[in-house]
Amino acid sequence: MIVRDFNKIVESERDRVVSDANWTSVRMLLAGDGMGFSFHITFLDAGSEHVFEYKNHFESVYCMQGSGSITDLATGETHEIKPGVMYALDKHDRHRLKADEELVMACCFNPPVSGNEVHREDGSYAAPEELEA
Amino acid sequence: MIVRDFNKIVESERDRVVSDANWTSVRMLLAGDGMGFSFHITFLDAGSEHVFEYKNHFESVYCMQGSGSITDLATGETHEIKPGVMYALDKHDRHRLKADEELVMACCFNPPVSGNEVHREDGSYAAPEELEA
Repeated sequence: MIVRDFNKIVESERDRVVSDANWTSVRMLLAGDGMGFSFHITFLDAGSEHVFEYKNHFESVYCMQGSGSITDLATGETHEIKPGVMYALDKHDRHRLKADEELVMACCFNPPVSGNEVHREDGSYAAPEELEA
Repeated sequence: MIVRDFNKIVESERDRVVSDANWTSVRMLLAGDGMGFSFHITFLDAGSEHVFEYKNHFESVYCMQGSGSITDLATGETHEIKPGVMYALDKHDRHRLKADEELVMACCFNPPVSGNEVHREDGSYAAPEELEA
């Protein structure tokens, strides 16, 4: 059994805390944990906008705090994001996420993120086999 | 893209809300959604105790609200559960979960739960292939 405390990670396990432009992600579970998915608590700064397209991953995102919106860039459709709303990128959907207030999100990735990915110019993460290469 | 709102599910999509002895689970994502994992928001009643052993699943559980404890029934070790604490049953660990205050948990299952499982006497869910049989 693995037991981890978000607050202890933030205090003293900074290798599990990843920041990029206007977002921070606390990696509670990664590929190495052998669960078959990874689990992250992710913060998106108030006023920020992000375009992501996880070509190699499925991701679900559950809003715990904050407010904003998500736009499906294939259809142009926009959905409100508020606590209790979840979106799932079952078609690796290219999307724009806007945080009006700071968003706090619980995110699951399949395949699991290893922790070594960086967002590429197209908003994707490399596939596991590309990272191994 | 799938977008679902916890509050709307609770109001009007009751087939996604499953209750058993002293717990209720709101199924935000199930096997049929094709994400490779399922995602549930689960409530455990204040004062309740539960013994589970997901022999056929990996499960991670992130505490959003409440307080309690988890005991690993193989080792006897007990860990405090409070907001920000996550446990992950990477060894299909048989465990006892106690809710001192009502616990609100974000749960991921791999393989995904279909929604038709019931807890068996040993605290497990059937494997996907057993459900199909």
